[in-house]
Amino acid sequence: MESWVRKISLHEPSLKDNTGDADRLANALKRDLKTDNPVEIDLQLIRQLPEFIRRWSHQLRCVIFKDRGKYVLAGISDGEGIRPIAGIAVDLGTSRVVVRLINLETNETLAESAFDNPQAAIGPDILVRIHHADTPSGLEELSDLIVRELNRTIKHLCQQGEMETTDIYLIVVSGNTAMTHLFLKLNPHWIIREPYIPAANRLPLIKAAELGISINSTGRLMAFPNIGSYFGGDLISGVLYSGIHLQEETSIMVDVGTNAEVVLGNRHWLIACAGAAGPALEGGVTRMGMMAGAGVIDRVTIDPETHDFQIHTIEEKPPVGICGSGLIDLAANLFSTQMLDIRGKFVASNCGNRLIEKNGIDYLVIVPETESATGKALTISQPDIESLIRSKAAMFSILETISTTVGINLDTLSRFYVAGTFGSFINPASAITIGMLPDLPIESYQPLGNSSLGGATLALTKPSCIDDIDKIRGKITYLELNVNQDFMNRFSAAKFLPHTDPSRFPSVPPR
Amino acid sequence: MESWVRKISLHEPSLKDNTGDADRLANALKRDLKTDNPVEIDLQLIRQLPEFIRRWSHQLRCVIFKDRGKYVLAGISDGEGIRPIAGIAVDLGTSRVVVRLINLETNETLAESAFDNPQAAIGPDILVRIHHADTPSGLEELSDLIVRELNRTIKHLCQQGEMETTDIYLIVVSGNTAMTHLFLKLNPHWIIREPYIPAANRLPLIKAAELGISINSTGRLMAFPNIGSYFGGDLISGVLYSGIHLQEETSIMVDVGTNAEVVLGNRHWLIACAGAAGPALEGGVTRMGMMAGAGVIDRVTIDPETHDFQIHTIEEKPPVGICGSGLIDLAANLFSTQMLDIRGKFVASNCGNRLIEKNGIDYLVIVPETESATGKALTISQPDIESLIRSKAAMFSILETISTTVGINLDTLSRFYVAGTFGSFINPASAITIGMLPDLPIESYQPLGNSSLGGATLALTKPSCIDDIDKIRGKITYLELNVNQDFMNRFSAAKFLPHTDPSRFPSVPPR
Repeated sequence: MESWVRKISLHEPSLKDNTGDADRLANALKRDLKTDNPVEIDLQLIRQLPEFIRRWSHQLRCVIFKDRGKYVLAGISDGEGIRPIAGIAVDLGTSRVVVRLINLETNETLAESAFDNPQAAIGPDILVRIHHADTPSGLEELSDLIVRELNRTIKHLCQQGEMETTDIYLIVVSGNTAMTHLFLKLNPHWIIREPYIPAANRLPLIKAAELGISINSTGRLMAFPNIGSYFGGDLISGVLYSGIHLQEETSIMVDVGTNAEVVLGNRHWLIACAGAAGPALEGGVTRMGMMAGAGVIDRVTIDPETHDFQIHTIEEKPPVGICGSGLIDLAANLFSTQMLDIRGKFVASNCGNRLIEKNGIDYLVIVPETESATGKALTISQPDIESLIRSKAAMFSILETISTTVGINLDTLSRFYVAGTFGSFINPASAITIGMLPDLPIESYQPLGNSSLGGATLALTKPSCIDDIDKIRGKITYLELNVNQDFMNRFSAAKFLPHTDPSRFPSVPPR
Repeated sequence: MESWVRKISLHEPSLKDNTGDADRLANALKRDLKTDNPVEIDLQLIRQLPEFIRRWSHQLRCVIFKDRGKYVLAGISDGEGIRPIAGIAVDLGTSRVVVRLINLETNETLAESAFDNPQAAIGPDILVRIHHADTPSGLEELSDLIVRELNRTIKHLCQQGEMETTDIYLIVVSGNTAMTHLFLKLNPHWIIREPYIPAANRLPLIKAAELGISINSTGRLMAFPNIGSYFGGDLISGVLYSGIHLQEETSIMVDVGTNAEVVLGNRHWLIACAGAAGPALEGGVTRMGMMAGAGVIDRVTIDPETHDFQIHTIEEKPPVGICGSGLIDLAANLFSTQMLDIRGKFVASNCGNRLIEKNGIDYLVIVPETESATGKALTISQPDIESLIRSKAAMFSILETISTTVGINLDTLSRFYVAGTFGSFINPASAITIGMLPDLPIESYQPLGNSSLGGATLALTKPSCIDDIDKIRGKITYLELNVNQDFMNRFSAAKFLPHTDPSRFPSVPPR
């Protein structure tokens, strides 16, 4: 099994071999790793070595990591395995931060926790936070908000995992470019101003203590590199987790978080684009509904004969609202049952008494007030449907644009990975019905779950994949959507259900 | 001219090239350096880049350094040359610390200063300091003593050089193994205990701020690597300065400081030994006299006819005592004028009324009380002469041992470098006469001055020599004198003037 933890048995020094302790350890690690690359041991660790090496009778476990070709010692522990050795994977999301505690010797996940990004107190919108970073000590404040909550969570996870925070030697953080900047106290001022330049795309391996993170004082923190302002480390992490970059056949990965980001490719090439800057995505794919949670409608079916609604809620609690996947299910079923026309307008004759009107706006009742947990009817308005259609059209246009750029037909893709919460809940058949995702066999669709956290976990547990991160970065061609003229034409054509050209969706029954 | 300062003109970013600022700078530096090796820019510098790059219109001067194959950015400054860029070379001696301020663009020395090692307050003897490092916060105290005085001196030098301490980006420190350990807060506990293992021989390039040194906050500190407990970075630095490692012909370098250290070799091989651990050197070569200073006798000649003494004092002040080189001159002249016999005993018949006796010990008056600045006669005792003879015998035995080990006859050496204050003052002819140094043509002897400071200066001013440091380390074979049996035999044979075998000193007139 691969592991960043190496058991090292040092030769005892003698009068004939007066190599220094640190040099002896670096040499032993080089032999153990079968590498000619340098192994760096920093001054803080060198200070600990003489005492610990002798206390542990020259038997020790070393936690290493790799950074741009060189290996770095992140910590040492006793050779007998008295103390555990752990790492932390972090998905640093704009709205939510997910933290996973991992045993670095067994590579098991020991515990997991999440918290709402406390930077939301400054502004839920990332732009507000970026502007706040320009105010006096605003950047420090934003970073400290995350660090404080991260420390609290790490402490809590360690209690669950029955260890001390000093047993943690590695942290891998995967976030978008802006979040990574704010976390590392890099001012993101220029990433929102033309030509949108990050302070750094590749980030140095730092001491976690440099940011005030309470793990072992010699422990290291790696942040996934970005490709540009609108294509962050979370995506690189996602590609790593998907394995697209290792496959001979061409696959696609879509991550719908705050932005809609797409990577297409195989082991020979990768092309990526992100939709955040596209005007069509304003209002965003993710604003279609509320966050998933107990009582939120995540699946809907409508009986084609009776037009009865069958709804499913998370944890099967009384309904409180609808999330993105539920909305897509709803729209697909409304369309199949001809309650929506190809323009996405409610068909009054088929909607019956579910259709109501208020202040000149049409609403469709999903759940009547008698069955709703809120005491009010749960409805969807004509503008909500139009917003959904803009979002799905944007999504499909992004997919078409990126595939056309490389001369690939979307139908020929071997796998379609859908990352994120969205990917876990979405019903691909419904997404195809409304023309959001291409008309591939259902089994081509594979949910990845939290691919950003998955990639960070891989970096912590599979040393052989570390070099892949830079390879992925080096291989990806980034397509800037907001400067692409074709995009707007495709977007207009995709604003119908499923599309102005129904031949692209053969599995969707024609009207 | 070589320099660690690189003028860099960055391409301006564009929508078509959204490389991050740090990545853009690293790439530009790699092109400028014509290297494939990584160029590391740490987080602190990345934080400064976006603002400074734009303020300086993409024109900047970068201070770099090299560490184990990789280049490290130590700081950035304006491209127009408004601020100076400087470095500090430090000879970190057990008793004295010498500090040199260097302009890193012109490689000129701007100012130089020295101070007595403030650790002497803990103990003049290095062993006392090493034991003190084991007491609570003793190590921090010892390091801070040096750092405080170093900061004061750097500030003072900057005033002389008309710059700010923030204009300093590099410090190179050359010291022996114990001093380097104490300075870097590495506990030297094990370097005085068998088998004498340093915490580290190769030392990482650190931030000067890590030790509390007040230069630019991103500035870096390099400490010369050691070879072992008794062969320190100051010797590596000395070899670098001598250039022995570059020459086809075999040369020797001798550094008589607190220890007597010898390096013999050429561009193909180097062999070294240090005499500190040898019992014969107890009492030490350096205890022969007082430190050089105003009024100290540094040259002596004795008229062979009249036995009149001609003495020369430093700064030609009234005599207060005698230093090492004066003592060697004195002994050589006493021997040539037959006032000393081949065993080093005073010859009463030739010493006249200069020979006095007190409590059963013979003293020779060098300066009568009427001419002395102290009001007392300056004398040398029979035990002083014996001590000198033990020291010179040790010196010669070290030279013989090391040369015999490699099958080289001392007579065939092309150059004999004498480093340190000792090397600057010693009269080689006198040293040959007493059999301290081999009987080579006088012009073979070359004083190096402070070779430790010289090597540190080279590291700051000549980037191409940085790789030589590790090459020297890798090439040197270290000969442990105190475990060598032959040494004691040679030592006994060398306790005569000039030697039991006068044929080894053909230029010294036979008795």
